[in-house]
Amino acid sequence: MAGTLYGVGIGPGDPELMTLKAVRILKESDIIGIPAKDKVSCTAYKIALEAVNEIGEKPVIAVPVPMTTDGNKLKAAYDEGCEKIASELEKGNNVAFLNLGDPVVYGTYMKIHKGVTDMGYNAEIVSGVPSFCATAAVIGIPLGQGNEEIHILPGYYNADEIEKYKGTTVLMKSAGKIDKVRKKLIDMEKSNNVKAYAVTNCGMEGQMIYRNIEELREDAGYFTTIVVKEKNKIQKK
Amino acid sequence: MAGTLYGVGIGPGDPELMTLKAVRILKESDIIGIPAKDKVSCTAYKIALEAVNEIGEKPVIAVPVPMTTDGNKLKAAYDEGCEKIASELEKGNNVAFLNLGDPVVYGTYMKIHKGVTDMGYNAEIVSGVPSFCATAAVIGIPLGQGNEEIHILPGYYNADEIEKYKGTTVLMKSAGKIDKVRKKLIDMEKSNNVKAYAVTNCGMEGQMIYRNIEELREDAGYFTTIVVKEKNKIQKK
Repeated sequence: MAGTLYGVGIGPGDPELMTLKAVRILKESDIIGIPAKDKVSCTAYKIALEAVNEIGEKPVIAVPVPMTTDGNKLKAAYDEGCEKIASELEKGNNVAFLNLGDPVVYGTYMKIHKGVTDMGYNAEIVSGVPSFCATAAVIGIPLGQGNEEIHILPGYYNADEIEKYKGTTVLMKSAGKIDKVRKKLIDMEKSNNVKAYAVTNCGMEGQMIYRNIEELREDAGYFTTIVVKEKNKIQKK
Repeated sequence: MAGTLYGVGIGPGDPELMTLKAVRILKESDIIGIPAKDKVSCTAYKIALEAVNEIGEKPVIAVPVPMTTDGNKLKAAYDEGCEKIASELEKGNNVAFLNLGDPVVYGTYMKIHKGVTDMGYNAEIVSGVPSFCATAAVIGIPLGQGNEEIHILPGYYNADEIEKYKGTTVLMKSAGKIDKVRKKLIDMEKSNNVKAYAVTNCGMEGQMIYRNIEELREDAGYFTTIVVKEKNKIQKK
């Protein structure tokens, strides 16, 4: 019988925020899949290894995704990854593919999930804590409360879009445009009655919490999540 | 020394989706706080008890929140809860307050968090898997991928708002207006190039997955999460 592929959300960074199910699946799986060229360069692998030492002994399937917007190159990388995984499933091996945060929230795994299920194999998503939840937790604020809406924008947003929405706006993966975004947020704090926060490397080494958005610098890095809240909503009890 | 309050996200329903940290904090805490009038009526308590049997032996602080929009009644309920918790923290006891899903996502706990920290006590939020992540996982679809935005609307939304946003729209706690919302979604599927899904009691007894939104009925209940996706984004690989 063919094995099963598990897309395992390993949470935002702190190994203790892995779920019981993620830990069990990693222990039981025969092979670990990673969205990187090797273990050493894979943040998700390093986090998972801290909670589940046994994965250090298991073989790894590396699915490096090129840093490109070229659809053909991306497709080729995913197709190759799916083929490698399928050949192990075919042998009856169960594969656990690691995904930082939660797989359904901009996770690399979902492309693999579609590819492998389209080929007729069983695949299951194991939910994890998304980074934006942990970000609000370390700041100590609700993302949404009562009738507040929550809007999550991935790294492709334009700085002008930030003020488009009511309630709370979460900006993910803002690396490369921090300066522009910071300027916009400072303007918005002056005129729009909002308050912006940011966290870099949440739950990981080098975690930084910015309660004053003016202090956020361009080199804040890839793992920076920004939360913009309507102020009247924060004060309302 | 005063104790610490922990707001513990216990995830969407499946006890195995609790985090290692949630389990540890529940084991170590002296007292369990619940957002209900007693253990028997508290869904979060029942889930946590399945993963951490020890909490059955621990004393409970019940903070029942009245089903009302009357701000004064709500404030009185939260104030009373905060006082009860504070008097235990003052004795040096650590209190773990249970919260379904994740505390920062429309969690009752955040009011307690603000009240107790305003009184000068230490409080920490322990992130959990939010219900909408588990919902997308059991359906087997990404909430957001690439440049797709994710919009989360709490139970107060108007049916017309559903078509306001690009990308993915998540409708939480739709009980009481399922009929109106279903009609709207059927119209949108015909004209707007969207696909709607729903899950009731995700990861719990009586879980129902609706891949055809026409089948969703008014009595689907409080724990129903609806996901509306732009169709072209689903098909894009």
